[in-house]
Amino acid sequence: MHAIESNLARLGIILPAAPAPVAGYVPFVRAESLVFISGQLPTHNGKLQFKGRVAASGPIEPARDAARLAATNAIAVLREACQGDWSRLVRIVKLGVFVACEADFDRQPAVANGASDLIVEIFGEAGRHARCAVGTNALPLGSTVEVEMIAQITTR
Amino acid sequence: MHAIESNLARLGIILPAAPAPVAGYVPFVRAESLVFISGQLPTHNGKLQFKGRVAASGPIEPARDAARLAATNAIAVLREACQGDWSRLVRIVKLGVFVACEADFDRQPAVANGASDLIVEIFGEAGRHARCAVGTNALPLGSTVEVEMIAQITTR
Amino acid sequence: MHAIESNLARLGIILPAAPAPVAGYVPFVRAESLVFISGQLPTHNGKLQFKGRVAASGPIEPARDAARLAATNAIAVLREACQGDWSRLVRIVKLGVFVACEADFDRQPAVANGASDLIVEIFGEAGRHARCAVGTNALPLGSTVEVEMIAQITTR
Repeated sequence: MHAIESNLARLGIILPAAPAPVAGYVPFVRAESLVFISGQLPTHNGKLQFKGRVAASGPIEPARDAARLAATNAIAVLREACQGDWSRLVRIVKLGVFVACEADFDRQPAVANGASDLIVEIFGEAGRHARCAVGTNALPLGSTVEVEMIAQITTR
Repeated sequence: MHAIESNLARLGIILPAAPAPVAGYVPFVRAESLVFISGQLPTHNGKLQFKGRVAASGPIEPARDAARLAATNAIAVLREACQGDWSRLVRIVKLGVFVACEADFDRQPAVANGASDLIVEIFGEAGRHARCAVGTNALPLGSTVEVEMIAQITTR
Repeated sequence: MHAIESNLARLGIILPAAPAPVAGYVPFVRAESLVFISGQLPTHNGKLQFKGRVAASGPIEPARDAARLAATNAIAVLREACQGDWSRLVRIVKLGVFVACEADFDRQPAVANGASDLIVEIFGEAGRHARCAVGTNALPLGSTVEVEMIAQITTR
């Protein structure tokens, strides 16, 4: 078993099938060695698991869990981009993390760590990525987070 | 006539001249085979056509039309990046769609489809792209949408 | 002295050491010839210098200065990506500028010019970049701006 599959198993993560393409928009596009993965929401079995905006007065854990789940979905798409062969992965390049929040909330990086930490747990050194984490007033379906990803894979 | 020009003609779309560079910021930059296109607003003849934020209680069609118009401007820049030769286009890689909205609005994907659907109508399979659609409280000039694009072209 | 170092000196800019990596998230990742630089805040000596949201009724200069400072930090990371050798820089490719603002603010491009103008002052023609400037209701630590950057460098 490839080390990445072992890490997924150890963490108890079962990657979902990558979401089906909707209209013109597809889960990922590869250009040269770069894979651009569409913005992922914290869905499980097609249902959104985390809704609503984070506030300074509230707990941060649900939003962090939401970022972790959205990252899981991005990883599922990445596995498809690798055609299931993790040895093709060179590295995770960049994460964009959007956090739906009240205007007084300033801990977007702590929320985004839910995604970043998972990725490093799974991919190790190859998981260390550049990141941009920002707030926003509203996300699709009322989601708490949205995560987009760029990765590098070998071409053949 | 190239198939892409036929599609534009059939849709009745006359691409504007790409906007002139303003200060240090230019309409596009190519790096290797990737073209990064600056964020485009729904302008026509240099005038913004769609202002204001979308609300859950309001109609979605104007915002969708705004996304379509902003995408038209991105396509005009892309044509310039191809030096007018559409045979150089490999594919559309990624769209970033920002939708100015009230905090209760959750249909950013439906708005972004105004851009995505147009692109697939024009470019067909080569138009199928990764996408990230998010909300925001405010955009330049009070615009309803802003669309950024990455495309892949042949280099020579 | 390389022309870029001369420009920095002439502008009185002393680049800070690139920020240390925090957890899984690192200051930059290079993939082929592209360098993806993490979102930078307007910090100096590790302390955030510009907080709060821009409003239509307020002055724009502090936010523009914030964008300039955040860009300075991105340039510091880029220098590290070049291993201190500016002759490796091909060009600045893309800036993403997020401006924390009230919903009535529509001059995000004028704020982002604080970053764009600095980059062209320093890098000249190689500094001309694609850009996407948007508003947001909230940024990390309550920052006024966040700047992410993509650059192209020679590989070896």
